[in-house]
Amino acid sequence: MKNLVNIAIIGLGQIGIYLYNELRSKKKEIERKTGKKINIAAISARNRNKKRRFQIQKNIFFKKPIQIFRDKKIDVLFECIGQSDGISKKIVETALKNKIHVITPNKALIAKHGDRLAKLAEKNNVNLEFEASVAGGIPILRTIKEGLATNKIDKVYGILNGTTNYILSEMENSNENFNKVLQKAQQLGYAEPGNPKLDLNGFDAFAKVRILSALSFNTKISKHKCIMQGIENIDLKDIKIAGQLGLRVKLLGISQIINNRLFETVHPCLVSKNTYIGNVNGVMNAVIIEGKPIGESVLQGEGAGPGPTSSSLLSDLLSILRGNIKYPFGLSSKKRKSLKSFNNDNYTNSLYLRFEVNDKQGVLSLITNRLAKYKISVKRIIQTPDKKNKKATIVIITHKTSEKNASNCLTIFRKNKNILRAPTLIRLYN
Amino acid sequence: MKNLVNIAIIGLGQIGIYLYNELRSKKKEIERKTGKKINIAAISARNRNKKRRFQIQKNIFFKKPIQIFRDKKIDVLFECIGQSDGISKKIVETALKNKIHVITPNKALIAKHGDRLAKLAEKNNVNLEFEASVAGGIPILRTIKEGLATNKIDKVYGILNGTTNYILSEMENSNENFNKVLQKAQQLGYAEPGNPKLDLNGFDAFAKVRILSALSFNTKISKHKCIMQGIENIDLKDIKIAGQLGLRVKLLGISQIINNRLFETVHPCLVSKNTYIGNVNGVMNAVIIEGKPIGESVLQGEGAGPGPTSSSLLSDLLSILRGNIKYPFGLSSKKRKSLKSFNNDNYTNSLYLRFEVNDKQGVLSLITNRLAKYKISVKRIIQTPDKKNKKATIVIITHKTSEKNASNCLTIFRKNKNILRAPTLIRLYN
Repeated sequence: MKNLVNIAIIGLGQIGIYLYNELRSKKKEIERKTGKKINIAAISARNRNKKRRFQIQKNIFFKKPIQIFRDKKIDVLFECIGQSDGISKKIVETALKNKIHVITPNKALIAKHGDRLAKLAEKNNVNLEFEASVAGGIPILRTIKEGLATNKIDKVYGILNGTTNYILSEMENSNENFNKVLQKAQQLGYAEPGNPKLDLNGFDAFAKVRILSALSFNTKISKHKCIMQGIENIDLKDIKIAGQLGLRVKLLGISQIINNRLFETVHPCLVSKNTYIGNVNGVMNAVIIEGKPIGESVLQGEGAGPGPTSSSLLSDLLSILRGNIKYPFGLSSKKRKSLKSFNNDNYTNSLYLRFEVNDKQGVLSLITNRLAKYKISVKRIIQTPDKKNKKATIVIITHKTSEKNASNCLTIFRKNKNILRAPTLIRLYN
Repeated sequence: MKNLVNIAIIGLGQIGIYLYNELRSKKKEIERKTGKKINIAAISARNRNKKRRFQIQKNIFFKKPIQIFRDKKIDVLFECIGQSDGISKKIVETALKNKIHVITPNKALIAKHGDRLAKLAEKNNVNLEFEASVAGGIPILRTIKEGLATNKIDKVYGILNGTTNYILSEMENSNENFNKVLQKAQQLGYAEPGNPKLDLNGFDAFAKVRILSALSFNTKISKHKCIMQGIENIDLKDIKIAGQLGLRVKLLGISQIINNRLFETVHPCLVSKNTYIGNVNGVMNAVIIEGKPIGESVLQGEGAGPGPTSSSLLSDLLSILRGNIKYPFGLSSKKRKSLKSFNNDNYTNSLYLRFEVNDKQGVLSLITNRLAKYKISVKRIIQTPDKKNKKATIVIITHKTSEKNASNCLTIFRKNKNILRAPTLIRLYN
């Protein structure tokens, strides 16, 4: 790589702007560490005249990013738009085809098109780096690809979404309901002001799970249909009851190999307050890797926000400037295999079930009989009457049962007039 | 680097043997990930005929390691003897001079001679890698050098010695005294059977602190005289009293920049049971990095043992096989500066002081008067009488005071006949 490196930044949202300023303020340090001078040669954003805290020189601003490839000689391109397809995909593809290294925090793009893009990067002998796509500033991908390179990893899981973790923690701390805390999260910039759906429904965490799986197990990115649930149905009531039981609700992303098959999921879990994962609160992310011979490794840090994201983007840049051409997924695309998927029906957990019922005789026994019929044995029952409204809340903690069995059993309750709404189900993490 | 890579392993203790077996069983995986074939071309240990679970071929065994350099063409050498000087130093120097890459888990060697050895490696354009020297399997050095490369780190600290952490945890769990638990640790292989002194007195953790400082702050390895204390004087009594106060004793290694000066230390700390660090138990290690823009990052994992150590040794090997020539400390020796040291006298903490006294009138007021004279204000006093023996234990938690002031104040107590032994001092971590 030549000594003066031309950089393009595509997208000037929160992350793009932070990155731009970091690159400018750390020019000298980057040169000291890599021997390369960097030059921001092109920037693209939808609106040049939008109010920003800094001026963009006219001659490096491009309204249409594609034009950059014609007008400028770029060595490294940062894609900071964030779409899973569309312009993000087009820019990354064009860059790789033009032998330009690409760095992106775009988990949606990598989770969907990572395999194809990696192949393209390998073919053109350039890097495609995406450290910032998973767990913000935590260098988890580099750790798996390099630090733990020869370990046999069986499982990787953790808290992969800061927004939902903040909401769950804050509901517990402030005793406020989901909608109120969501508003607070939006005010603090922890949740998208417009459409926080992709955080809340587990989609964001799930994209990260897909990327973690591919790196941990040396596989292609899977396309399996998986159990993906968010936190939209977690009630303050559930958090309180869990608390009384010494448990805490956490949205976990889990990827593991069960009987040589790949199982990936995202769903809320009840975890003990005494566990490590039960004490990762607020916007923090944590990833736990179980492997041999390493044992259990934990990485925790700020999972989102422009600062931590920039930290990872720059670590990718330094890796490239040091002249390492690396396989995007740690080994060549040809050598990454596909894994069959574990049947979701056989996923087995203890369950927390919360029923809202009319406080009438026979309702509890109706529930327990149904459970017995499906051989779901009960570990614990907590019934809390709401005398005034002649209603009651029944919480049941079951012994382990399969997804299929649980879902068959629970469907029945939807049809009963004394059971006021579909029961809330939260899996216990074991 | 050529396609067939010749490897030498010097030292066949627990780690050397584990490494040897890992290299043999992972040959194919290493080839798949790096495109290089490896060949164990030479092994050296004091005794070839020692009982081992595997046979060593005669033609690769060398009683005198130095002979390897004459007889074999080696590309990568693992130094697994572990001395800070002597043969370990000689082998590493000779290898580097012969343009052989060196990988070592030897923290004593690196902490003492790392600067000079790094220069030698740079001069000869080979790698000197020592990921396994700090925190076993946790890829902490690579994370600082690469994953967090452009962060400004202010502080790095943590639990860096598994042996002492196991002993402290086990004293709390089993209610047994130091010596008993030390024996148990030795039986389990967590502490050196012969001479566990370097673990217990903080020396081992301190070598790791020195290495972490150099990497985190881009400095030469410091030679400052520092506060280094181990856990030999921690009594079961202290652990119990701490427990009642919601605290736990942990041996922490700390390195930080205070007013542009470097402060490094290892000593037992009292930490809250509610903190992250207070819940890292058993043989686990944890390193916490505070930096900008990353915020607080935590890495936790098994800090010792041949498995985790091998994991790091192999990650170093893969990095070399992938053809990266890297500065051992992340940037060129010429650019690493020296930092002045923070004056230990000004190190300031709240203190836990335990006095064993004769249960006589006036003793408590003697102590509190002395403290008052040195302007050390008291936050809390717990006096527990031992009626039978006419003795008492007085525990005092103070507000913050400097090292110098505390040590001046405490010296006086040594001369009093009613104070039965020098008071135990444990700093509260804040």
